[in-house]
Amino acid sequence: MESEPTRVLLAVSESTIRGYPHASISSRGAFEWTIQKIVRSNTSGFRLHFLHVQVPDEDGFDDVDSIFASPEDFKSVKQRDRIRGLHLLEYFVNRCHEIGVACKAWIKKGDPKEVICREVQRVQPDLLVVGSRGLGPFQRVFVGTVSEFCVKHAECPVITIKRRADETPQDPVDD
Amino acid sequence: MESEPTRVLLAVSESTIRGYPHASISSRGAFEWTIQKIVRSNTSGFRLHFLHVQVPDEDGFDDVDSIFASPEDFKSVKQRDRIRGLHLLEYFVNRCHEIGVACKAWIKKGDPKEVICREVQRVQPDLLVVGSRGLGPFQRVFVGTVSEFCVKHAECPVITIKRRADETPQDPVDD
Repeated sequence: MESEPTRVLLAVSESTIRGYPHASISSRGAFEWTIQKIVRSNTSGFRLHFLHVQVPDEDGFDDVDSIFASPEDFKSVKQRDRIRGLHLLEYFVNRCHEIGVACKAWIKKGDPKEVICREVQRVQPDLLVVGSRGLGPFQRVFVGTVSEFCVKHAECPVITIKRRADETPQDPVDD
Repeated sequence: MESEPTRVLLAVSESTIRGYPHASISSRGAFEWTIQKIVRSNTSGFRLHFLHVQVPDEDGFDDVDSIFASPEDFKSVKQRDRIRGLHLLEYFVNRCHEIGVACKAWIKKGDPKEVICREVQRVQPDLLVVGSRGLGPFQRVFVGTVSEFCVKHAECPVITIKRRADETPQDPVDD
């Protein structure tokens, strides 16, 4: 007579490093840690929910060298974003399938920290897992941190999982 | 062929409310949540470590009405602190015993946030659990928050568990 599975919401992000597989280092680290240390062999006791928040037109850098000559050109950008988001989620859903833990995944657009907290209100998970780059105070000033915001504002317990030191890329702002 | 149990360090504190049983509301909430949502039926997969940090002579208030006439009088204060700390840990060790999960508990003296991070370095748990009163920014200015410090500085994943709204005492600084 086990109770309902523990519902874990994982906020996952794309890697910022060109040519890198799609999931960021901190997202993959947070996921693998959750499986290894929390879920363990009790795969039926947990249900994982993956939320990927896409920042609309983040800073325009990706499109600096693009030429937009027709409405179709914008559509192709949107289509490209969609495909990247799907690849990211596919990675995690495949891993869950291999491990045998039930999951669900979806994409939202907006400011990640706000969307994550709004989705916590909507979905009411038991636990929110966020990866963190573990940036120092100097780096934090420029990039803000989603994890800090969520720890303060999300209406459920939050676990922050820092990236391992040996996985930090040359520029720690990358992920 | 399960791997080593997941080692969870829980930082637990005394209640500040007179007459209340010894464990603070947020410590008990964090513990019960961990059992219910993380450990679940997998009691052999987890090992709980309880750390209680006693602030030496916190603000002297407790002793304002005491009269110290001999070295013995100071000893009796120390003895009283020791007994209160033991009662606190006994509560959690008893609960673990009832549930059937292995545990260990100890007391340290010092500044809670610093001692907790130092103990994480020493014990190297897989996960640190800290309860939080979920204070607003105005209240935070005066009381600081141990949980925020630990999320930033502890060298392991940290889960912050806010006190439930319906368990918040009249003065939210109390716990």
